[in-house]
Formats: sequence, C-alpha cells, structure tokens
Amino acid sequence: MALISSELQRVIDLLAKLPGLGPRSARRVALHLIKRKDTALTALASALDDAAAAIVTCTTCGNLDTEDPCRICTDSRRDGSILCVVEEVGDLWALERAAVFKGGYHILGGTLSALEGIGPADLNIGPLITRASAPEVTEVILALDATVDGQATAHLIMDRLDAANVRITHLAHGVPVGGELDYLDEGTLAAALNARHTY
Amino acid sequence: MALISSELQRVIDLLAKLPGLGPRSARRVALHLIKRKDTALTALASALDDAAAAIVTCTTCGNLDTEDPCRICTDSRRDGSILCVVEEVGDLWALERAAVFKGGYHILGGTLSALEGIGPADLNIGPLITRASAPEVTEVILALDATVDGQATAHLIMDRLDAANVRITHLAHGVPVGGELDYLDEGTLAAALNARHTY
Repeated sequence: MALISSELQRVIDLLAKLPGLGPRSARRVALHLIKRKDTALTALASALDDAAAAIVTCTTCGNLDTEDPCRICTDSRRDGSILCVVEEVGDLWALERAAVFKGGYHILGGTLSALEGIGPADLNIGPLITRASAPEVTEVILALDATVDGQATAHLIMDRLDAANVRITHLAHGVPVGGELDYLDEGTLAAALNARHTY
Repeated sequence: MALISSELQRVIDLLAKLPGLGPRSARRVALHLIKRKDTALTALASALDDAAAAIVTCTTCGNLDTEDPCRICTDSRRDGSILCVVEEVGDLWALERAAVFKGGYHILGGTLSALEGIGPADLNIGPLITRASAPEVTEVILALDATVDGQATAHLIMDRLDAANVRITHLAHGVPVGGELDYLDEGTLAAALNARHTY
C-alpha cells in the first residue's frame, strides 16, 4: 500500500525540484499546505495561476514584468547610455535594491557552464551585441558572478563586443560592507588592498 | 515604481510563509517557477488543485488520505489493539518508513505550547481517550518529541488516560543509529547507558 496518496506525492515531487528544497523539506511544505488547504494552498495555487497569466519576459532586456517592453526599459528617467549585463532577473532585483544604478539592464539567462552544458548559443548574447552597438550606448557593465563560469562568460562577451565602440567595465572587488577580514579569502583581500582609497 | 509586479510579489509573499523558506529563498523559488511557467509552474498549480480536491482528513485518526477513514484505519492486517500517538502526519510517515509498527495511529495535530498559545483544547485529545477506552485497545504508545513541550503533552495524555485500562509506553531514548557519541548530549548518553543491553 502506498502510504502517501498519488496526488500528494506529485505535489511533493514537484516541490522537491524547486531550488533550495529537497525531499524532506518538500514533504514538510506539502503537509503544511495540505493542512491549510482552504487558506494557504488555494491562495498559492491561484497566485501561481495569476502570475503565470500576467507575467511576460521583456523582449528587449529579458526582465520579467506584466508589460513588454518592461517598465525599466520604458522608463524615460533611466539612462539609456549604460547597459548592465546580469545573469538572472534575481540579480537585477538585487542591483535595484542597492538603488544606485539608473541605466538599462540586459539579462543573459545564465552563464557558460561546462558542467550544465550551457554554451554561448544558450545565452541571450546576440541581442546584447545589437543593443550595445546602438550609437547612444557608451558603456556596458558586466555585473556577472565572480566565479570561473561568470568570468568565462564575461570574457566571451568582451570578445563579442570588440566591434561595438563601448567602454566595458566590471564590478569592483573588495571587502563586503559589514564583512570581517578574518573570514575573507586571500584573493578578495589582495584585490581590496590593491584598490585601496585615500580617506 | 514597484520593481516586482503585484502578481509576482503575491507569489513571493505566500512562498515566504512556507516552513523552511524566507524572503530570499521565496524570491528564488518564485523566479524559478515564473521562468518555467509552461512546465514547472502550471504543473505545481494543477497538482496543488488536485491534492486540495482529493485529500481529506481521516475523522478517526487525523491522517491525511484520499479516503475517510484512511487506508491505515481500514487496513484489516493492522493490529487494532495498539495505538501510536504522534504530533503530526509527518511523524506517521517517518514511523511508516521505519516499517516496524503495525498498529493504528492517532494524530494530535500539535503539542502543548505556551509560546504558540496551544492548549489542551487545541489538540485532538478527546477522540483519543474515546478510542483508547474501547475494549480491544490494550496499549497506547506516546511517540512524541523528546522536548519540553512534547513531554508536557505526554504527561497530559497520561493523566487523561488514567480511567482507560491501557498500558501507556514511550519510545526508548538512546544513541541514534549511525550517531557519534562525541556529538550526543549528556542526557541521551545517560539514558543509553542506563538502558544498556547484553550482547
């Protein structure tokens, strides 16, 4: 006898595929939802339906929004001369929370990864070259992860952008604000020391 | 301008309330689902709908199943003379995975908790007393957490079961299988030493 009914098992299996959840946490979440099926479960199911119906991918930058082009792309107060290239929409959100960048974004949809079989053709690079080649664009910031895959992707984009007449920049390395020196790796410390500022 | 659309924010807010998820992991899960809205998202939404429609709470023991009474309660091969009292359905699943208990279950729906304001009236105790008072029941196993709240609940149930003529037992304390002595607390080690067995 299967102890867990097939309907519940299907919910558990789908939840276990979500990032950060495994079989055990998926069981906990599924039980939590089923125990509150008149509140939490139906609310989540309908919120997912609504989001699926309303949210589209911006064909210009790759952002997720209810409009295409998205509200960042159509915001006339933003500076169209700078493009910030990020891996995922979550990175765009993180930069917007920092509230210092007022240019446009371009979402790659991932980084090169030999392990996951992601090659240049899987990334949103072609449209980036077209956008960066427009006369009004003067700078492309490659805000990619400081990992091997992130940096390999940055080098690929730099090669492809060779013909476009733009300044290509990357984020500064250094001590995270609030970070303790004791816990930092040597590479970060060396970069922070080399790029030191005068008070 | 709200960066995240209200539809997406609602999904994030609902996900952030699930056990084990916080605002940051809820954002990751929401992005993962929206990016895969034709596969992961619609599958999860429909699985949740199906589960909500199919799954009921067993009015006898409190288990979740597609039938009421549940398939454990109606399984004639199980021993109706022993009742195992657990806090949640997840605990029933854990005991069933261990595959050594062949009696019936009774799910309390929680434990006493001063912090969360859970009193005796919030737990499924009354029906347990009725079930335990049936002539065929000879033993009630209190398989509750070895925490202060779990043990307070066990004592309350023992008091209430005073009139029912049943043997009341609890799970043995000891070294977890595969556990390292070095990492165990003194209470567990003392209990394991006192309950030692001859080879």
